[in-house]
Amino acid sequence: MSDQATADIGLIGLAVMGQNLILNMNDHGFKVCAFNRTVSKVDHFLQNEAKGTQIIGAHSIEELCAKLKRPRKVMLLVKAGSAVDAFIEQLLPHLEQGDIIIDGGNSHFPDTNRRCEELKKKGILYVGSGVSGGEEGARHGPSLMPGGHPDAWPAIKPIFQAIAAKAPDGAPCCDWVGEDGAGHYVKMVHNGIEYGDMQLISEIYHIMREGLGLSDDEMADIFDEWNKEELDSFLIEITRDVLRFKDTDGKPLVEKILDKAGQKGTGKWTGIDSLDRGIPVTLIGEAVYARCLSSLKEERVRASKILKGPSNVQFQGDKKTFIDQLGQALYASKIVSYAQGFMLMRQAATDFGWNLNYAGIALMWRGGCIIRSVFLGQIKEAFNKNPKLENLLFDKFFVDAAAKAQDAWRTVIGSAATLGIPTPALSTALSFYDGLRHERLPANMIQAQRDYFGAHTYERLDKPGEHVHTNWTGSGGNVAASTYNA
Amino acid sequence: MSDQATADIGLIGLAVMGQNLILNMNDHGFKVCAFNRTVSKVDHFLQNEAKGTQIIGAHSIEELCAKLKRPRKVMLLVKAGSAVDAFIEQLLPHLEQGDIIIDGGNSHFPDTNRRCEELKKKGILYVGSGVSGGEEGARHGPSLMPGGHPDAWPAIKPIFQAIAAKAPDGAPCCDWVGEDGAGHYVKMVHNGIEYGDMQLISEIYHIMREGLGLSDDEMADIFDEWNKEELDSFLIEITRDVLRFKDTDGKPLVEKILDKAGQKGTGKWTGIDSLDRGIPVTLIGEAVYARCLSSLKEERVRASKILKGPSNVQFQGDKKTFIDQLGQALYASKIVSYAQGFMLMRQAATDFGWNLNYAGIALMWRGGCIIRSVFLGQIKEAFNKNPKLENLLFDKFFVDAAAKAQDAWRTVIGSAATLGIPTPALSTALSFYDGLRHERLPANMIQAQRDYFGAHTYERLDKPGEHVHTNWTGSGGNVAASTYNA
Repeated sequence: MSDQATADIGLIGLAVMGQNLILNMNDHGFKVCAFNRTVSKVDHFLQNEAKGTQIIGAHSIEELCAKLKRPRKVMLLVKAGSAVDAFIEQLLPHLEQGDIIIDGGNSHFPDTNRRCEELKKKGILYVGSGVSGGEEGARHGPSLMPGGHPDAWPAIKPIFQAIAAKAPDGAPCCDWVGEDGAGHYVKMVHNGIEYGDMQLISEIYHIMREGLGLSDDEMADIFDEWNKEELDSFLIEITRDVLRFKDTDGKPLVEKILDKAGQKGTGKWTGIDSLDRGIPVTLIGEAVYARCLSSLKEERVRASKILKGPSNVQFQGDKKTFIDQLGQALYASKIVSYAQGFMLMRQAATDFGWNLNYAGIALMWRGGCIIRSVFLGQIKEAFNKNPKLENLLFDKFFVDAAAKAQDAWRTVIGSAATLGIPTPALSTALSFYDGLRHERLPANMIQAQRDYFGAHTYERLDKPGEHVHTNWTGSGGNVAASTYNA
Repeated sequence: MSDQATADIGLIGLAVMGQNLILNMNDHGFKVCAFNRTVSKVDHFLQNEAKGTQIIGAHSIEELCAKLKRPRKVMLLVKAGSAVDAFIEQLLPHLEQGDIIIDGGNSHFPDTNRRCEELKKKGILYVGSGVSGGEEGARHGPSLMPGGHPDAWPAIKPIFQAIAAKAPDGAPCCDWVGEDGAGHYVKMVHNGIEYGDMQLISEIYHIMREGLGLSDDEMADIFDEWNKEELDSFLIEITRDVLRFKDTDGKPLVEKILDKAGQKGTGKWTGIDSLDRGIPVTLIGEAVYARCLSSLKEERVRASKILKGPSNVQFQGDKKTFIDQLGQALYASKIVSYAQGFMLMRQAATDFGWNLNYAGIALMWRGGCIIRSVFLGQIKEAFNKNPKLENLLFDKFFVDAAAKAQDAWRTVIGSAATLGIPTPALSTALSFYDGLRHERLPANMIQAQRDYFGAHTYERLDKPGEHVHTNWTGSGGNVAASTYNA
């Protein structure tokens, strides 16, 4: 019954993100058909949040597909994992060649790679799209990172770019990322960077609260100031708001929140992927580990009664100067974190043969998403100036920014160590910066040790490419270890 | 032909580790039958290294199995991965119920879990054994970490404990680790800790060379001193030897070695496993990442010409005092690294239902292997005193050691930051120590942020177990995100 087929797109999954995306599409003139596994939710949604809109509903997958214009576009906003595969299976009998399935959840990119390939064989155009911005973003303009079958892009582009956030210059924060799971890969790295940004802010908050003894309102004032300068970003802004928010008793709510943060998701995947690819994405790694340590609350409570800290835990110098230095340390560490994230994407692009547009990625993150910031505008400009930029830290703007911040950064790391306040992310960022700018690192010692105990061989600086083994002890064999790692 | 069946054990794989293990077994009165895929190597070995011994050889798998006493024991020392599976397949037609296959390579523990299970169904007792100590260890006493089918242990114990290294009290550095892949798991963590120890030493070497301007001989003297004290260990000893070793031109050889260290192995696996299990094994993670960064040599060379460092890169204070502080920082960081490694094993034991004997593991590592040290004797004592010790850092010996070292440790981190020398492992160790001893970490800020932008909910300190969502902005929905991670 083709008269039924009036909807521009179908959306499955009516949790908050799904509901808000539907309302957003509706605002932009698209007719959406909503479906949910628990069908009563559909009616509830139509009678409440969607009341008075042109949104329609379906009570079965079959009905949903019958109500979609061709090529059908069905977007899933369901829990990553088996639920995605299950809905794809249910959809297939009701779809035709050239129809489009879009997964807008946080799927792991290897799953998206696999689904793209499987569905391609069946003539279905599969898209995995990162969606960032939280519930507010979904409602009023998310950052969208679609990747998958390229033929799907022209069909979904009008909807995606209409509902996406707009950068200050009006450009939509949505562009085609690349083939296969490229969209979900970039979203994964985005989330990893988000983990890093949140950890950095938390460390600064920790130093302010414990080392400087600042009140939550005083801290809110500082984040408010920072939000007007180079650190201007959504996460700095909400940190200010969080610090200002009072519980019913008039005291800051954030201080009453349990200090255990979960980490089973995209942050962890980014860390694992970086180890697999051999790219030192140390800041995200530390951010994930910091959440792990936070989760061991009971063990920490016991440790706090046993382990000794420094005798002096209050900062003694000029607070105003130090607060300025904290801002600089935060900014410099952020540069490192983004440089690492782009290094990782570059490696993945090489490994998978994706032609990633780095300026475009920075633009997609520039607005709408959780890590949106003025800073991402600078990153976009760096890649616009030089699309083949080897490392973000090689762009003049960031070279100068890091050079300007480094003294303050070093002071902050030293002070936090003295005061006994953990700064895993701020510290690893400085170590990475200092490591990257060292033509020579001490890995020659590691190579010598490995050759000493395991005959692993090494290369000489003056004879690169030639693998040599030295009999360091004067005894033992001269056989190199070819098949065994000690 | 049972008269043929005279060998106590067969060994497949005649690279340096395999050859040396055979010679070691021969020294202890066991008759070994050697086999290698490239059969000519068997004859070469018998006519050279094995000449005048009771070692025999085989030119086919069939011949090898025919020459073994029952239950047959065949040990593989081949490249981890498909070669192990291939040899198992080739062996099976020539084995009987109750025969034993031992994989002595660096297999990834999930592979060993799988092989144990598959071979159990066929009546074959499978063992995955960690072997550490490099070529010297294999020859004169390695550390052996066998796990797998428990029925295999009585049959292989006499050989394994005879050839293993002996701790100073005479105990063999070999005991049964546990079921399935427990032996390879413990070996993986051992190797991860080895990565960490080597990275820590390298960072200290870097500070001494660059910050203090010490010569290689001066550094060798310091490591020699340290090797007589609490840091007494194989890796400190060989670092001394490496620093002393002169090239043909009389200059220190180590300074001519290319500073690129590989990382595709057990260190990486440990890092990935720790992220998967949610245990903050930060020091090994940083050690792996440091090798990744070392590998980006060409990028670092370019970075060194662009990125700015601090103006003052030479240490200004009292060198002798600082050298002592370096030793303390190294020692304290080592404590953290081992504590993290044991935390990881504890979690794996819980996840897999293994009953790991932590004092036994410390004893196995006490001698023979690459990380052997006096320090491991202290760890063994800690777990002997309290087999249920929650965290190595809770044992009085280590509480006191860390308390004593912490001031020096903090000074070293601050100085390295000032001097611009990267210390990713030393720094993350201090951050972990300070994090663990904090009853409250700033993860409450992360939880507030997550609830702000993604309605992820949080727990209150005064109402644990209850998940609350706050409408931080006063606008937007009250729906909590149940299926979506922003």
